[in-house]
Amino acid sequence: MRSDQFDTGGTLIDVTSLTVGVLGGTGPQGKGLALRWAKAGIKVIIGSRSAERAGATAAELGDGVTGMDNRGTAAAADVVLVAVPWEGHGELLASLRDQLVGKIVIDCVNPLGFDKQGSFALPVKEGSAAQQAEKLLPESRVTAAFHHVSAVHLTNLSIPELGIDVLVLGDDREATDIVRALADAVPGMRGVYGGRLRNAHQVEALTANLIAINRRYKAHAGIRITDV
Amino acid sequence: MRSDQFDTGGTLIDVTSLTVGVLGGTGPQGKGLALRWAKAGIKVIIGSRSAERAGATAAELGDGVTGMDNRGTAAAADVVLVAVPWEGHGELLASLRDQLVGKIVIDCVNPLGFDKQGSFALPVKEGSAAQQAEKLLPESRVTAAFHHVSAVHLTNLSIPELGIDVLVLGDDREATDIVRALADAVPGMRGVYGGRLRNAHQVEALTANLIAINRRYKAHAGIRITDV
Repeated sequence: MRSDQFDTGGTLIDVTSLTVGVLGGTGPQGKGLALRWAKAGIKVIIGSRSAERAGATAAELGDGVTGMDNRGTAAAADVVLVAVPWEGHGELLASLRDQLVGKIVIDCVNPLGFDKQGSFALPVKEGSAAQQAEKLLPESRVTAAFHHVSAVHLTNLSIPELGIDVLVLGDDREATDIVRALADAVPGMRGVYGGRLRNAHQVEALTANLIAINRRYKAHAGIRITDV
Repeated sequence: MRSDQFDTGGTLIDVTSLTVGVLGGTGPQGKGLALRWAKAGIKVIIGSRSAERAGATAAELGDGVTGMDNRGTAAAADVVLVAVPWEGHGELLASLRDQLVGKIVIDCVNPLGFDKQGSFALPVKEGSAAQQAEKLLPESRVTAAFHHVSAVHLTNLSIPELGIDVLVLGDDREATDIVRALADAVPGMRGVYGGRLRNAHQVEALTANLIAINRRYKAHAGIRITDV
């Protein structure tokens, strides 16, 4: 088994055969993950409201990355990372319901507010951004992952090994296995199953704590899970 | 500066001069932390509803650990760890308000529910167990910490270095510094400032994810913060 293949209980999945679309791929988090995946040999499409801006970011990233508007990206990709600001999250996903049928959706959105005392978790009617996605995309395979990955570290290629874990949540075992494999494909990143989607809120909200840590320690904090 | 002293912005604090009381100290989490602190030379009092059971646990732990009922423990200790089940949390703290005036309170309680699909975070009117403690103990210095420490590993002294981080939350800088020092006093444990008390919910709730990880990977998972 090659290291870019993944055993999901009998079926070998070569993640380099997947096309990953990144909605909001011109933002720092989406762009950073796109860069690392492209370097790992995965086909990546940058999605954006503007196909032109998507194309510009794709050209900047190189490594065969292409750019389209969000709708075209959702239609063309096998796996779709949702990396848009929380404000436009629900509206965008509702508009892409048809394009995302049957696909693995990875939500990495953190619904956070900011005030003078720093950041804090916003209440979400559905429980979490990921559960909102699940409600809006009943025919998609919704997972949650990549919440705690520093965009600064992702885009800094002088850090070859990131040394972080990615919690992958979801109720569809095969989908979470594939998303874990997409994390494992990036050097120094490890995908760790992190529970069902109903436990996504605290994983999203923990980003507020990491922001507080970053401020206190002048760091770009991430997490690792011990004893696993 | 000795390693058991801690620089809190000018004031050196020797944590071995502190007496730590553990409410619910006969339970696995409280007992495990009591054991590790006692081994680190810190004076520990086990608290329990029953002074007799507290005394029995104290005798079992050795290393100078003593036992009292919860009220006596709260009155005698400088720093009080709250390690009781969520069900009795509010009632117990309300009853100890006078004993806890001016003291550092460390809440490590995780309000979780369990069903066939595993564990999940319970809603808490005040936002989190720690914020409930803050409401009930307006004259105490409430912090939140030690949520993710495996009781199994704590009580297993064949693991000399735990290799985990403890997120310490609170709005009182000196109090969080002292609690961090209490984490640092245990070999292989590190206290990391983790944000204000309003961000405690997700730290408590993350325990549900660690329980899911433990089940999937047959582990006793903990967390580490990277880049700090």
